[in-house]
Amino acid sequence: MSQFDNISPLDYRYYSEEFKKYLSEEARIAYQSRVEVALAKALAAEGICSAKIAKEIEDASKKVTAQEVYEGEKKTRHDIRALVNSIRDKVSDEAKPFVHLTSTSYDIVDTSNALRYKEATEELVLLVLRELEKTLIEIALREKGTIQIGRTHGQHAEPITFGFAVAGYVSRLGNRIKQIETAKDALVGKFSGAVGAYNASSLLVKDAKKFEERIMTELGLGVSPSSTQIVEPEPTTDLMHAFVSAFGILANFSDDMRNLQRSEIAEVGEAFEKNQVGSSTMPHKRNPINFENVKSFYKEFMPRMFTVYLDQISEHQRDLTNSASQRFIPEIMAGLVSSAKRLNKVCSKMVVDKENMERNFMVSSASIVAEPLYILLAFHGHPDAHETVKQLTLRADKEGTPLMKIVDGEADLKPYLAKFSAEQKGIIADPKKYIGLAEKKTELLCNQWKKELGL
Amino acid sequence: MSQFDNISPLDYRYYSEEFKKYLSEEARIAYQSRVEVALAKALAAEGICSAKIAKEIEDASKKVTAQEVYEGEKKTRHDIRALVNSIRDKVSDEAKPFVHLTSTSYDIVDTSNALRYKEATEELVLLVLRELEKTLIEIALREKGTIQIGRTHGQHAEPITFGFAVAGYVSRLGNRIKQIETAKDALVGKFSGAVGAYNASSLLVKDAKKFEERIMTELGLGVSPSSTQIVEPEPTTDLMHAFVSAFGILANFSDDMRNLQRSEIAEVGEAFEKNQVGSSTMPHKRNPINFENVKSFYKEFMPRMFTVYLDQISEHQRDLTNSASQRFIPEIMAGLVSSAKRLNKVCSKMVVDKENMERNFMVSSASIVAEPLYILLAFHGHPDAHETVKQLTLRADKEGTPLMKIVDGEADLKPYLAKFSAEQKGIIADPKKYIGLAEKKTELLCNQWKKELGL
Amino acid sequence: MSQFDNISPLDYRYYSEEFKKYLSEEARIAYQSRVEVALAKALAAEGICSAKIAKEIEDASKKVTAQEVYEGEKKTRHDIRALVNSIRDKVSDEAKPFVHLTSTSYDIVDTSNALRYKEATEELVLLVLRELEKTLIEIALREKGTIQIGRTHGQHAEPITFGFAVAGYVSRLGNRIKQIETAKDALVGKFSGAVGAYNASSLLVKDAKKFEERIMTELGLGVSPSSTQIVEPEPTTDLMHAFVSAFGILANFSDDMRNLQRSEIAEVGEAFEKNQVGSSTMPHKRNPINFENVKSFYKEFMPRMFTVYLDQISEHQRDLTNSASQRFIPEIMAGLVSSAKRLNKVCSKMVVDKENMERNFMVSSASIVAEPLYILLAFHGHPDAHETVKQLTLRADKEGTPLMKIVDGEADLKPYLAKFSAEQKGIIADPKKYIGLAEKKTELLCNQWKKELGL
Amino acid sequence: MSQFDNISPLDYRYYSEEFKKYLSEEARIAYQSRVEVALAKALAAEGICSAKIAKEIEDASKKVTAQEVYEGEKKTRHDIRALVNSIRDKVSDEAKPFVHLTSTSYDIVDTSNALRYKEATEELVLLVLRELEKTLIEIALREKGTIQIGRTHGQHAEPITFGFAVAGYVSRLGNRIKQIETAKDALVGKFSGAVGAYNASSLLVKDAKKFEERIMTELGLGVSPSSTQIVEPEPTTDLMHAFVSAFGILANFSDDMRNLQRSEIAEVGEAFEKNQVGSSTMPHKRNPINFENVKSFYKEFMPRMFTVYLDQISEHQRDLTNSASQRFIPEIMAGLVSSAKRLNKVCSKMVVDKENMERNFMVSSASIVAEPLYILLAFHGHPDAHETVKQLTLRADKEGTPLMKIVDGEADLKPYLAKFSAEQKGIIADPKKYIGLAEKKTELLCNQWKKELGL
Repeated sequence: MSQFDNISPLDYRYYSEEFKKYLSEEARIAYQSRVEVALAKALAAEGICSAKIAKEIEDASKKVTAQEVYEGEKKTRHDIRALVNSIRDKVSDEAKPFVHLTSTSYDIVDTSNALRYKEATEELVLLVLRELEKTLIEIALREKGTIQIGRTHGQHAEPITFGFAVAGYVSRLGNRIKQIETAKDALVGKFSGAVGAYNASSLLVKDAKKFEERIMTELGLGVSPSSTQIVEPEPTTDLMHAFVSAFGILANFSDDMRNLQRSEIAEVGEAFEKNQVGSSTMPHKRNPINFENVKSFYKEFMPRMFTVYLDQISEHQRDLTNSASQRFIPEIMAGLVSSAKRLNKVCSKMVVDKENMERNFMVSSASIVAEPLYILLAFHGHPDAHETVKQLTLRADKEGTPLMKIVDGEADLKPYLAKFSAEQKGIIADPKKYIGLAEKKTELLCNQWKKELGL
Repeated sequence: MSQFDNISPLDYRYYSEEFKKYLSEEARIAYQSRVEVALAKALAAEGICSAKIAKEIEDASKKVTAQEVYEGEKKTRHDIRALVNSIRDKVSDEAKPFVHLTSTSYDIVDTSNALRYKEATEELVLLVLRELEKTLIEIALREKGTIQIGRTHGQHAEPITFGFAVAGYVSRLGNRIKQIETAKDALVGKFSGAVGAYNASSLLVKDAKKFEERIMTELGLGVSPSSTQIVEPEPTTDLMHAFVSAFGILANFSDDMRNLQRSEIAEVGEAFEKNQVGSSTMPHKRNPINFENVKSFYKEFMPRMFTVYLDQISEHQRDLTNSASQRFIPEIMAGLVSSAKRLNKVCSKMVVDKENMERNFMVSSASIVAEPLYILLAFHGHPDAHETVKQLTLRADKEGTPLMKIVDGEADLKPYLAKFSAEQKGIIADPKKYIGLAEKKTELLCNQWKKELGL
Repeated sequence: MSQFDNISPLDYRYYSEEFKKYLSEEARIAYQSRVEVALAKALAAEGICSAKIAKEIEDASKKVTAQEVYEGEKKTRHDIRALVNSIRDKVSDEAKPFVHLTSTSYDIVDTSNALRYKEATEELVLLVLRELEKTLIEIALREKGTIQIGRTHGQHAEPITFGFAVAGYVSRLGNRIKQIETAKDALVGKFSGAVGAYNASSLLVKDAKKFEERIMTELGLGVSPSSTQIVEPEPTTDLMHAFVSAFGILANFSDDMRNLQRSEIAEVGEAFEKNQVGSSTMPHKRNPINFENVKSFYKEFMPRMFTVYLDQISEHQRDLTNSASQRFIPEIMAGLVSSAKRLNKVCSKMVVDKENMERNFMVSSASIVAEPLYILLAFHGHPDAHETVKQLTLRADKEGTPLMKIVDGEADLKPYLAKFSAEQKGIIADPKKYIGLAEKKTELLCNQWKKELGL
Repeated sequence: MSQFDNISPLDYRYYSEEFKKYLSEEARIAYQSRVEVALAKALAAEGICSAKIAKEIEDASKKVTAQEVYEGEKKTRHDIRALVNSIRDKVSDEAKPFVHLTSTSYDIVDTSNALRYKEATEELVLLVLRELEKTLIEIALREKGTIQIGRTHGQHAEPITFGFAVAGYVSRLGNRIKQIETAKDALVGKFSGAVGAYNASSLLVKDAKKFEERIMTELGLGVSPSSTQIVEPEPTTDLMHAFVSAFGILANFSDDMRNLQRSEIAEVGEAFEKNQVGSSTMPHKRNPINFENVKSFYKEFMPRMFTVYLDQISEHQRDLTNSASQRFIPEIMAGLVSSAKRLNKVCSKMVVDKENMERNFMVSSASIVAEPLYILLAFHGHPDAHETVKQLTLRADKEGTPLMKIVDGEADLKPYLAKFSAEQKGIIADPKKYIGLAEKKTELLCNQWKKELGL
């Protein structure tokens, strides 16, 4: 089967070698085998089978391939039974009864998925998100003093710096990294049998909960507090929420960058590679295709959360209507990793056009002053400063005169203006000074997150 | 790359050979090549290039492989430019300029997708849905007289027949088949260039709209009335809605069958294959795994509609935030086809347990009579029949006496009961007769849909 | 209860008097009463009750108020039984038995909702959408020749006219109006009793399907082909899809206008009312608040479609899990109507800044020519026109020289340029001429939709 | 305006008096006034205005009504400016300039919403969820020994107790209560001005971040780490996720109870009130309408999460496309509170039918034994226990003989059976003993959550 016979874009187009170890079907089965091994070790520790048998099972489990399990499933029509048979086929008759003993399928499936998601989160998702965070911190610190017009409603508002704008994303992404870590650490496995009451294991061991703990400890996982046949869905739901809400931040950042790349704004740009074609018919185009791609991935993967929520409902001690749908969960991780890596790459080489930022800023420099003016007038006692300045602004607009020129001509305002301090006058005269704490806060946030995440 | 290195369940587990021709990446590129051929033919028809050149381009296009386009894209960073280069490499220098001439990438991409979705709908989706419809009709007609208790709120209500219950699905699915056909026929292509104003093609041909029509006619597609760089999203949105709402019906049917298969109800069953394992730990289980699987697919694919809706929004003459996300659209088709095929297979061999249907029906036979009794009492002039019967029902319940026995003891009701016709008395005496038009309507619906769909 | 004690923004903030007649609870109950009247008339027509009794029921039904039904429900705990009691209380003892006779609650609920949604769609939704369509047609025709740079990826692409851009929305919205009409006409009622098998009505009438038709004809509704206790959900689902996908177009248009209103682009503007405050702190701001509001409503109401999809599933002859959720459906209509009215209002007074359109266009006039140049070079035989022009464009960019100046200096290109026709040379010299069919197609689309919708 | 003129079911049908204080528009404006008061106090603390002026503003703010703000908004077209004017109108000229001074609208809006959601969560949502938790604990402990057949796939599986089944929900709901608490405590306000850089406040105070902290401390809120014009959306997003995922648990529990209430199962029942009508046409029905209502609310409110996710994206320093949509957030809280209260009420009076639980259990008692049998056979050395027992089960089924009778006849199994301990034999003989830790774990979970939540 050629890669291009695949129908999922994740397999034919956005595949990445590093996905294989965690997100592929081969990986899924390898993690299930790891849980069977942990079970065998626990059986030995309880004295139910010998250490030698446990070792036999361990060696056999490591040799299991997805290929053979799928072959076996054609006969059994049951995937975990096929896995068990695969292991059994590789051990002595003596060891055979102890493979999977006391276990129900979902002891294996849910525990192995928790383990897989945990390791994939640590070794894949968090890794790339931390890389991206680092890149954003670098940009924010580098551009902490780069003046930019702040925009609300797509309209020029008040001054910020470009570094400050990026620092907001540093903080939001940092917060999501913490959220993902918390959710990942809350993943749990289970070994409570077919209906969650430890019916089977209680037949053989004295303390079935301790037996379950033993297996989870071996795997480095916590224990589900209230499993039925399956682990309660909330830990996975929380992790997916953490992923999807992190994706929202990547999408927001990408939208901002796409807009700053508009022809008329042109404050940032994706670096263009040699030989890259912007458009098949318009050779002059330089499109923000990477930022667009991230937004597009967000639109594809955010709605998957709906499936995750629907899978919270499983009737009684479980129905199977979450089985096929949960197989798609690794795709959410692949989508997020793919987008974060892409963003990191494009941000590392992002072009910041300071001249254009300055140009755009200057267009509004005359009107920016309206806000500090009104506040200072009010502060110095003017009873209706907001309305007064609004009217002057409208006049300035109409007459095409700078606001301050009109203000200077207003006799009524003189007494108030006279009370302005030197610093206050300075801001009114040069709106570039009206950046508040933009620079300081950029440093604060970046340093905080560097420390918090050890970057 | 092994199939089990894939991360999408559609590729490693639910893949079906027939998907390849329509839903794979190889197919995607083959359809794009077909559009390039149609363009070349139109250029020849307009006298812009020779028929020989068009033939050259046609021959070359048919040889293009996904593999080589992906190789080319690594250089150009632009998939359609890579496709064009692939074709150009295979034709004479004389023909080269005419490959892709006047076309923008999305003239190719959107037109080829419309064509691909149209043919996949006709040759894949509709085929399996019609097969399923046929199977449901067979069951409905076969079971048209099989008495079953109708259920509302999960409670026994009034009598129907099992065929009648299935006939409802025949009607609903038939309606969706028509809806899918309508939506499929409304798919359109476009050849209006980079911003939809026929700027490029108007350079070379007198009537650019006629030129566009020529290409679409060659492909058997309608023309987009108001394309920009892209076809307006509504035709695809409507088709996906038709798919997703058809999926809702499959899910509803599956839920019903799952519930009828509950241990306590046991009115239907999935046929169990030899060697099939019901549970890895409970050998006696016979689980409705196929109905559960369909419900699970529904939960995975229904929310994809959210992506489709979000993709309705593309800024100005288009942004690219719908590009990656639209690549996932064939997955919705794969999901629907997979579920419909599965349902068809399991329904073909579905076991209907008439004894259990009868047994369950009889449990409520005494109380069923409450409804016809109250209606007939009212009809024959009782001023407060509903309340009166309700009180008697509560008494019957409490005393454990059949309702009619209590009714017979009520002197007040005698005058009304005396007015009952023989047929009416018959129904009160034997609730199995109280099935209204269940049987007739089953026939009516089945025959109507057999005719309508030519089954 | 004050309006501001309400918690839904639709009730305390976005309420509109015209909603009351269709979307309020008072309306809901009035429509239910109308169905009870139609039933009484049909009973009379069948000779089951007298015309006089039917008239009594009609008169009584018209007097029912929501207030009294809610009072009654406190006792019965059943809303339709309370409605029935309300009517019964107003008629003679002789008439009492015939109120609601043979009917199950959902014969009333679903039929009245179909009727209500149909009339609300006709008299509310379609009315405002048609008004908006008319306004868009006016703008498109008025601005059909107003040159604008077409934008893809937020980047300047090739020329269009502003009218052409709007005409695309005329076409898409027109198409949705037709879709809504189709879906609205497909709404159906039902009178098939508690499990859909006409059990009850078959007790009293010879042809229960004809009886049902009689009621629907009285109401001007079609008949559900396959009701259970409830009408099959697909007709409502289709109507909601038509609404939600129309909403997507309003959102797309609003996004475009928001972006054209950006400070740097400033091609359109919302008219600003006297006394209106742009910002509580920045008196100079003029924000696209109406377009933003429409986008915000879209984000609120589009996801409601998922409730509609989930409500496709009702177990067996129905469960009640769609009852409360369906009560929220009128909100979708209120949201759409509110947004369409808002858009219509703001568009009626929308300011189009032709100077800024021209200014923005001219910024890219030099590079626009790249596309026609490459196509004409190819057409006149250049074997590698796309790549050649791309390289020259990059040089033009680098050197800050107009592309055509560089082209004129290229000896290799001379022979091809010499073949250009006068018209072709004209386009290369003046990119404003490179608008293809923009103007013609604007006229075509507007005229077509004016005719189609009788505007 | 009558309550029945409303169009939202939350206002005309599911309204609850206690909503008013937090979720109504009146409440929204009252909370905004509280934030204006906190600002005035901070201005006084910084020495910008006198304490007397702050007191004047406080007194005025407390008198503001929604009615007057809405009147004012008709003029200003800006809600917060109208609020500010309302306060200004009530204070001396001297105080007027200090109302709202340095504040941008969203300093007020977002801070007041954070405060409102926090208090509504504490005093409304958590209150009812804790009540429900308490009720579930009572049921679980009361029924900890009530034998019930565990069900997977809707099929009888292995034994549990009904209390154990409920205890799983105790644990899951307890976990969500903690999650909601965590999310609630993470809500933050902001006072960083129009673009988040403290531009305005820095004009007047030395340390604008300290100034912001002062205001938040006064309100008992944390400070947003990275606000722009608005608070970053993640804290609200997390809270809504916590709500929606709690809703999923209520829905799951309701589905279970609905199913246990099926006519054929009949293990639990909603208590039926005197005069309550089960069906308008079927007087004998007792429907699980409250559990159905909760599921229906879930279907309505869970998809609202997608609005919340979409609102994570706000361009640059903010666009306003989240303004209208966020007004609907209190509806999610109203929906959750309404459902939790309903569940609590119905559970408090829930009827558990132990006889039917026993009856249903006994139906499968013969086959339940298959699992412990196969495990014990394997444990005692049988090399192929699972397959062997499966075959015997199929035979038992076919012949209608109890499994153990067949087992006893199998000579091959004798040696293994002989090794069974007395306790093991006891379980095989009486499947009611095969409940593992069901009872113990019920106690464990209930006691843990009682302690954890102080119930």
